[in-house]
Amino acid sequence: MTVAEPPVPATMPEPAAAPDAEATPRGLAIICYSGDLEKTWAAMILASTAGAMAMPTKVFVTFWGLQTFVRDDVRITGQNWMQKMLAVMQRPGVSHRKLSKMNFLGMGPWMMGQLAKQYHVASPKELLEMAQALGVEFVPCQMTMDMFGLTRDDLIEGMGEPVGAATYLGFVGDGAAPLFI
Amino acid sequence: MTVAEPPVPATMPEPAAAPDAEATPRGLAIICYSGDLEKTWAAMILASTAGAMAMPTKVFVTFWGLQTFVRDDVRITGQNWMQKMLAVMQRPGVSHRKLSKMNFLGMGPWMMGQLAKQYHVASPKELLEMAQALGVEFVPCQMTMDMFGLTRDDLIEGMGEPVGAATYLGFVGDGAAPLFI
Amino acid sequence: MTVAEPPVPATMPEPAAAPDAEATPRGLAIICYSGDLEKTWAAMILASTAGAMAMPTKVFVTFWGLQTFVRDDVRITGQNWMQKMLAVMQRPGVSHRKLSKMNFLGMGPWMMGQLAKQYHVASPKELLEMAQALGVEFVPCQMTMDMFGLTRDDLIEGMGEPVGAATYLGFVGDGAAPLFI
Repeated sequence: MTVAEPPVPATMPEPAAAPDAEATPRGLAIICYSGDLEKTWAAMILASTAGAMAMPTKVFVTFWGLQTFVRDDVRITGQNWMQKMLAVMQRPGVSHRKLSKMNFLGMGPWMMGQLAKQYHVASPKELLEMAQALGVEFVPCQMTMDMFGLTRDDLIEGMGEPVGAATYLGFVGDGAAPLFI
Repeated sequence: MTVAEPPVPATMPEPAAAPDAEATPRGLAIICYSGDLEKTWAAMILASTAGAMAMPTKVFVTFWGLQTFVRDDVRITGQNWMQKMLAVMQRPGVSHRKLSKMNFLGMGPWMMGQLAKQYHVASPKELLEMAQALGVEFVPCQMTMDMFGLTRDDLIEGMGEPVGAATYLGFVGDGAAPLFI
Repeated sequence: MTVAEPPVPATMPEPAAAPDAEATPRGLAIICYSGDLEKTWAAMILASTAGAMAMPTKVFVTFWGLQTFVRDDVRITGQNWMQKMLAVMQRPGVSHRKLSKMNFLGMGPWMMGQLAKQYHVASPKELLEMAQALGVEFVPCQMTMDMFGLTRDDLIEGMGEPVGAATYLGFVGDGAAPLFI
């Protein structure tokens, strides 16, 4: 799929403000749990497409997934040595994701990037920015921020207030379709 | 669970043709994302059981999952060297799946196969064919076909037309229960 | 998130007994598939929070996930040499989960445990017991029990009767929100 596929309306939708429950399309509640390149890609394709389809979409970012939303220019995160060591071992940032298999010291992701360019598939970073522009809300998990020692300044622009599992389940309880990626 | 468990009706159901929304059971929208043996197994058990229960079920096959749906007798896929190298590194076909852990050069999958036979659990290949016979629709992801250089001829018989994320989300938006496996 | 976050009612809810479909909150149907430490944690956080929110919640435990629900004091499970070898290679029990990445011979999980204590995050074992106390039902997959040679005596106290995929899909078909973790 290329991102040109979903029917993008000329004027941007405002999903969260829609007051009429009848007319509101079903919401989408994605848990972005994995930090792997290919799952990040899958989550961003679904989020940006849902945004283009005016589905009210929230992406709850947790565990390894939160590393994807650390700013690309931040190198070391964390307050104590354990948190810093975790950041050293796994470089954060959406542009530094690795494949879960066939990584081969970076050759796998490079080949994937080459193939994506050749077939006009947007990168995870481009899809993330597109999703944000289309009204998709990205919210970090408070517990993960605590455990990894992340601050709001470490994260990319435009993310929501940190929340917990109860907020996610409340959204699902209201009828949103859950996806754990 | 053996596949004998769900109540299989004597006459095959035609889920997609059911015109009455009240009587239609809730649909199931599986994303078959992983190419690992055990997740393939889980996806096929759920798909074939849903088919037997007459739940309108679509399986969207994407990323590594699409390799499972390449014909077992096809060895190398892809149009360029990068795509061919990906196929060499990971042999495609439902009968060539590997465990995500404890693979041990094939001993893990062999043991799993032995145990499955001993306890009368159908293989992923058998479950896949059963699901198709029960009306479950398997549809490939267009983007993945492009990136891996796969053609319709590479894939098993009976698969639907390639689609994108918007088709999947439309099915979910209509009320189908999503599962990302 | 700490477990103090969701609004825990003073008297425990009885979700399963609720007779009025109108008043019943939407159910949650978790498949606990992975035996990895971090996914076990995610599943237990969601299950215990859903229990505290009085969402009728069932956790279907299958494949590697079932190893998490073997009693911590049971060392070797299985009836034949293949099943025993699988248990030797992957020590069962909720307290013996390993990280899917950065395990480093146990240092990763130890650091995670230290950070969790420091930030008052309950352990998977504590969350599991809390979820059970809040009425969340954990049910083992019959097929997995057969293939791994597990008996009811191998599993922790308080689990439901073993079921198959049809039971899970029936719960989802009734409107419960599915999560595959």
